[in-house]
Amino acid sequence: SVTLFGVIDMAVSGYKNQSVTPSGLAVDVSKTALSSSGYTTSRLGFRGTEDLGGGFAASFWLEAGMSPDTGSGAATGGGIAFNRRSTVSLSSGLGEIRLGRDYTPTYWNDAVFDPFGNLGVGGSLIYTASGGAALGVPGSGFQSNPNYIRASNSIGYLLPPNLGGIYGQFLYALNEKTNYDPGGLTPPGVAAVVANPALATADNARAGRYIGGRLGYMSGPLDTAVAFARSTIASNFFVGTTTNLDIWSIGASYDFGMVKLFGEYSNNKQDVNFATNTFNPVGTTKPGANGALLGFSIPVGASLIRASWSEVRYNNLPVGVFASQPEADQFAIGYVYNLSKRSALYASASYLDNKNGAALAVGGAPGFYTATAPGGVGNAVPNKSMGYDLGFRHIF
Amino acid sequence: SVTLFGVIDMAVSGYKNQSVTPSGLAVDVSKTALSSSGYTTSRLGFRGTEDLGGGFAASFWLEAGMSPDTGSGAATGGGIAFNRRSTVSLSSGLGEIRLGRDYTPTYWNDAVFDPFGNLGVGGSLIYTASGGAALGVPGSGFQSNPNYIRASNSIGYLLPPNLGGIYGQFLYALNEKTNYDPGGLTPPGVAAVVANPALATADNARAGRYIGGRLGYMSGPLDTAVAFARSTIASNFFVGTTTNLDIWSIGASYDFGMVKLFGEYSNNKQDVNFATNTFNPVGTTKPGANGALLGFSIPVGASLIRASWSEVRYNNLPVGVFASQPEADQFAIGYVYNLSKRSALYASASYLDNKNGAALAVGGAPGFYTATAPGGVGNAVPNKSMGYDLGFRHIF
Amino acid sequence: SVTLFGVIDMAVSGYKNQSVTPSGLAVDVSKTALSSSGYTTSRLGFRGTEDLGGGFAASFWLEAGMSPDTGSGAATGGGIAFNRRSTVSLSSGLGEIRLGRDYTPTYWNDAVFDPFGNLGVGGSLIYTASGGAALGVPGSGFQSNPNYIRASNSIGYLLPPNLGGIYGQFLYALNEKTNYDPGGLTPPGVAAVVANPALATADNARAGRYIGGRLGYMSGPLDTAVAFARSTIASNFFVGTTTNLDIWSIGASYDFGMVKLFGEYSNNKQDVNFATNTFNPVGTTKPGANGALLGFSIPVGASLIRASWSEVRYNNLPVGVFASQPEADQFAIGYVYNLSKRSALYASASYLDNKNGAALAVGGAPGFYTATAPGGVGNAVPNKSMGYDLGFRHIF
Repeated sequence: SVTLFGVIDMAVSGYKNQSVTPSGLAVDVSKTALSSSGYTTSRLGFRGTEDLGGGFAASFWLEAGMSPDTGSGAATGGGIAFNRRSTVSLSSGLGEIRLGRDYTPTYWNDAVFDPFGNLGVGGSLIYTASGGAALGVPGSGFQSNPNYIRASNSIGYLLPPNLGGIYGQFLYALNEKTNYDPGGLTPPGVAAVVANPALATADNARAGRYIGGRLGYMSGPLDTAVAFARSTIASNFFVGTTTNLDIWSIGASYDFGMVKLFGEYSNNKQDVNFATNTFNPVGTTKPGANGALLGFSIPVGASLIRASWSEVRYNNLPVGVFASQPEADQFAIGYVYNLSKRSALYASASYLDNKNGAALAVGGAPGFYTATAPGGVGNAVPNKSMGYDLGFRHIF
Repeated sequence: SVTLFGVIDMAVSGYKNQSVTPSGLAVDVSKTALSSSGYTTSRLGFRGTEDLGGGFAASFWLEAGMSPDTGSGAATGGGIAFNRRSTVSLSSGLGEIRLGRDYTPTYWNDAVFDPFGNLGVGGSLIYTASGGAALGVPGSGFQSNPNYIRASNSIGYLLPPNLGGIYGQFLYALNEKTNYDPGGLTPPGVAAVVANPALATADNARAGRYIGGRLGYMSGPLDTAVAFARSTIASNFFVGTTTNLDIWSIGASYDFGMVKLFGEYSNNKQDVNFATNTFNPVGTTKPGANGALLGFSIPVGASLIRASWSEVRYNNLPVGVFASQPEADQFAIGYVYNLSKRSALYASASYLDNKNGAALAVGGAPGFYTATAPGGVGNAVPNKSMGYDLGFRHIF
Repeated sequence: SVTLFGVIDMAVSGYKNQSVTPSGLAVDVSKTALSSSGYTTSRLGFRGTEDLGGGFAASFWLEAGMSPDTGSGAATGGGIAFNRRSTVSLSSGLGEIRLGRDYTPTYWNDAVFDPFGNLGVGGSLIYTASGGAALGVPGSGFQSNPNYIRASNSIGYLLPPNLGGIYGQFLYALNEKTNYDPGGLTPPGVAAVVANPALATADNARAGRYIGGRLGYMSGPLDTAVAFARSTIASNFFVGTTTNLDIWSIGASYDFGMVKLFGEYSNNKQDVNFATNTFNPVGTTKPGANGALLGFSIPVGASLIRASWSEVRYNNLPVGVFASQPEADQFAIGYVYNLSKRSALYASASYLDNKNGAALAVGGAPGFYTATAPGGVGNAVPNKSMGYDLGFRHIF
């Protein structure tokens, strides 16, 4: 009753990131590596379903990520952990209740409507900007979302599959916050904070909470969905603030047969909520970013040609850091040759252009050179990034 | 020839711990969480048996614990490890020799004769007090037993199953101590210790050793067993001491059909042995604790009603800390609805009352508030703890 | 399509290491332990093959090491990781292309031509000296080879099996070095190094690169192979050096039926390459070591008797440290009783003699006592090491 499944995907990959110093010197940082998961994410999993009768079913899903180039898993220290998905479900004709660690609704739009599925050098800039690639300036909006792709401690509901093409997922993740009553005794305690306001540092007790949903419609060649979420990324009890990242996105794909088109628009905004508290600071801005993607895939016999353009534009950066808001554009192209349904050779290449201080890089690339070059005044600024993958993917 | 097996069990759980300050203020610490293993411990395992002929068999058992709410395993860093059991066995009509990491004989009585199996908010206080929940004062007897539930590096013997209902397990775990001969060269060396007696700190080289056994009788509705062990929890070569935890317990269950009764009594005593050594300090006390449990379970169709009362009383605490010896009582009640043999919904609740400084909490609860409240004299003292689990358990 | 396989092997083992102080006092360090992998390495793995048609096949292999005495895996923190092998392959009549973490060609000669397969107390001294057992003096040649047994990030090619007994493996492992262009900006930057030459410390960016191969011939009772490799173990960009370990070995086994003979010779030399760079220091020596092994195995019914002699001689140690070059000899004998093809009992014992400061110990032994004994002048020097394994091995 248990299915063992997995993917191993490795590629020879090359990357080059170019920065430019204030004096105009181009500085390249490059690397050649055996990379993992350029076409399909490497994994090992166990799953199964039990028919409970009466239209009810119980099921479980344990899926671990891994880096087969080194044999490591995703846990700290390199051990295997079921970080990709670890859920138990109870389902009926009314839908599915799912507990555990699962994908967030807002992530699916970024993955499903990118012809590169966020993977390898060609993965969407929306994903790159959301996944932790830093801008180099504070408050860039996409960063620091602990629940971007997945959420632990989640309770999910999925619509049943018989709604005439309508599908949906709703997810609430607990932050498992420890509450103190009276609240003033929350460590380090209100008395200590009054005596020394510097103690009112972020405890982030509310971070980790996620509430979001996704509603879609799939019929024939069309697939489209909207998603929205509020993900709590920081908090400070004594200042009385909760820092949320509000996300919404819309995406669609349409399969004309000869060619399948993809598109997505995504919006992220960081919002600091204030509680009624005498420690409230003055108002802050709401930094954020918008992302967009257009792409296509063309099947030709056993081959698949893929291409995408994606863009990210940052908003509300601190005044004076850059003359204009940072932005980045990326073009990606790829070729897949299917040796079978399970095994495929693939090649991908992408080119990324940063403007006004954006510091995004193609997937897998090393960091930009951002130090002060000898004799220079000011740091080198990220400019271009490019890379390729030449790989082999095997599903088991 | 390999069986893959496992359990995923998750629950929405709530906890509240109440302390009281010297001025009488009640301070609550509460938490809502997605918890793991409230009814059956979540796990993933591999096991198998080979018939060697002539009544002999070889078998292995690898079983990893996990927290499906986050996907993590039990290794440091969150990786999956076979921490629950990792054994190879050679068995015949004379019994089974088992090597590796295994359950200790003394743990079985605590688990088998608790209707809640030590799990969730309703798990026995004997388990809670033994498993590391701190009393807040030194030398409480139950704590710091590295081999309470399981022992690594163990050699075990199990009686064969055909002894007319008599069963038994004997286990010796090696501490894998490094010996130095001449002993005076044991680091940091006797010369250094003579020059600076403060260097004679605990090396705990003998810690980890465990010797124990369990002998039981099961016949029809009756199951009863006694268990005893000496577990070495600390040592100091230059002071010449070995600190053992001596454990014995007796438990029984009797199934009347309509109701099954459970009972256990457990005694723990910490014993410091002295070697013949000029560094011996003056005598110390033998702190310890007693625990008792009474419980029942009532099957009603596909349902199971469970309840238990358990108590722990500490002995020989340092004079003057509390007027009377600390003690704690817990009442637990639970309901299980079996959707199938493998899948079940369950609800549990428990209430725990600490007296005279005991600091036990229901399973899964956060820590008590024990700081000095503003304007107060003296710390807040743990008082009550309560919690609930609402969960789903699936076996595969 | 997935095969789950593994081994659990545990033994009760004892070890004793003897050092001698300058005044002639013998100091013994001994230990009794439940050890792992004394006859066959404990592991858990998943593997499979897909027939792609036309003589092509895709396959994968994930194999995790583990210590069943504690249930831990090989990742930092004790989690399970696929550290033993993690590969995907595409094969045809022309051979096999293999990507991932794999055994190095140079390791195979050490393992295949040792009747103890490098395992337990009887494992070859060539393995012991290569695997990290320290000599206690710098530059001993065998040490610090990160790719001795396996290499991550590797691209391998294996000859097809139909070459009339000729077999071969070639492997290149990427160091995944980050390159800076202009090179002078490599951190900390040439300007900083000119200002403070002490900053020109080893960055080891080129470490991890491995290039090697193995070519063998197997026909009837004969199996022989040569292997060679250059493994980069350190580098210093600003000094302009690359430190390689050059390895070559030749081994053979011949099965006379009543007895099978084994032999191997291995040579390791550390070579520091200089780039054209003004920071070059004066020339250094090329420390290294030679190793040799002779052994046999005798099958008697269900039993197997094994024995080996192995030796390691170090070269080019710093002048004045020891009057003569260090060397060590080891004798090992073993007995295996096969209960079935999968299950076996075994006993092994070995004796090791260090001379002139060599500090090798039998497999699994604790460290030597090398401190300055009280009243002594100079440190204790490693002398003898001995050990035994009494174990049980089960394959599943």
